[in-house]
Amino acid sequence: MTPIRVAILTVSDRCSRGEAVDTSGPALAELAQRQLDAQIVACACLPDERDQLAGQLRRWALDGPKPDLILTTGGTGLAPRDVTPEATLDVIERRHNGLMELIRRRCYEKTPRAYLSRGEAGTLGRTLVINLPGSRRGATESLEALLDVLPHAIETLRGQVIDDGRGSLLTRPDVETHT
Amino acid sequence: MTPIRVAILTVSDRCSRGEAVDTSGPALAELAQRQLDAQIVACACLPDERDQLAGQLRRWALDGPKPDLILTTGGTGLAPRDVTPEATLDVIERRHNGLMELIRRRCYEKTPRAYLSRGEAGTLGRTLVINLPGSRRGATESLEALLDVLPHAIETLRGQVIDDGRGSLLTRPDVETHT
Amino acid sequence: MTPIRVAILTVSDRCSRGEAVDTSGPALAELAQRQLDAQIVACACLPDERDQLAGQLRRWALDGPKPDLILTTGGTGLAPRDVTPEATLDVIERRHNGLMELIRRRCYEKTPRAYLSRGEAGTLGRTLVINLPGSRRGATESLEALLDVLPHAIETLRGQVIDDGRGSLLTRPDVETHT
Repeated sequence: MTPIRVAILTVSDRCSRGEAVDTSGPALAELAQRQLDAQIVACACLPDERDQLAGQLRRWALDGPKPDLILTTGGTGLAPRDVTPEATLDVIERRHNGLMELIRRRCYEKTPRAYLSRGEAGTLGRTLVINLPGSRRGATESLEALLDVLPHAIETLRGQVIDDGRGSLLTRPDVETHT
Repeated sequence: MTPIRVAILTVSDRCSRGEAVDTSGPALAELAQRQLDAQIVACACLPDERDQLAGQLRRWALDGPKPDLILTTGGTGLAPRDVTPEATLDVIERRHNGLMELIRRRCYEKTPRAYLSRGEAGTLGRTLVINLPGSRRGATESLEALLDVLPHAIETLRGQVIDDGRGSLLTRPDVETHT
Repeated sequence: MTPIRVAILTVSDRCSRGEAVDTSGPALAELAQRQLDAQIVACACLPDERDQLAGQLRRWALDGPKPDLILTTGGTGLAPRDVTPEATLDVIERRHNGLMELIRRRCYEKTPRAYLSRGEAGTLGRTLVINLPGSRRGATESLEALLDVLPHAIETLRGQVIDDGRGSLLTRPDVETHT
């Protein structure tokens, strides 16, 4: 499998103004490189502005670098200006509730507040977009919760596996998948 | 309770072209008959085409045979042509996230990849539509995850139970439900 | 923290006609007062009519009393006239799937039928709207499932905490949150 190409979008009013240091974006990059052998192809930091966020997601996914995966960090909570999920819903073509359910399910053991994240996930073109929380710990624990299923998800999205779970008339897969 | 009337829609490019054998649809039919005493009132196999799928769901639910339940199998993953959830969202009038959450929750013990399914559920007219994965094993395990709650769900959708959980001024239900 | 201001909307055809007694609304009020030190600022009982429900939610959240929290009880199931989730989706600006997932996850131990609730949650202005089931037991158990996370959720929605999980350049939070 060729390396997973990842772009990371940090969403934070304060970081975008230089009033706070973005530690979540770099932590996600390091984790993706180490655990997924991922290649980081783009990084950006934007304020909590729905249109700007939607525009960035669209440009990356449709114009370039067309990453396999865009991870956002921040803006998923209930604070008045948190709109990352809305920006994501504005642009994705196919929703993916299961990935967010898996994050919340697994992070619950660390803290029930995992269920306060409003993060969404879905695909735009051949890119999977996943919203992660803004704190470094919340962001990395959420990504860790997906590490075992992400490679298969990306391979499927790339069209590299015929994942309809049906044996052909000629060959029969040994392992049936679950999607 | 009169038998649950079920229609099964197999979604697969390859099966629709005769390049693969649909084992998932028949397995679902057998399971529904055996475990739910269901009556299979329609079956079809279509390619992964959003408009065709939406049209089939609409015709079955609104024109006939107006089944209590439509089970789809296939097209719920991340493969580029997987659009069964989108076709379902195009036609349903009332979403039902809980049913998909229950499937993923219970199938997780078999494989965490259960959370890769993007399946949706909801109602159209008096029909409940539920998206199941394409593999025979994924489809049947997903349906098994709902067997204990489906009869009550169908009776409620039929309007055969007053499920507002409130005692009337005349009689008082012995068992309170949870919806 | 100033008291959480709560409005309760009972959704029931029969209660609205005086044919049944609403025990769920009062039970929610009592629970919110006792466990959350909440102040009940409005109560109403409406039939299962989508437009009426949407209008009531909008008036409370945008005109007054602009509560921190609106709890609805009833209309979340599969009965033909159950449309509380649809009325809620009509008006909320930001969805919150996690809260409903947490309710269903925790209430599952009481009954798997917790997953039959189609309840939604989300924000409208500075108000969080949460759909609870209609039965007294289902409604109160569902609210109990959120008691530990609600105060933080409300404080965040009020803008009283900077919950981006990022340390400023001047001060560093001792506890990182997960949103």
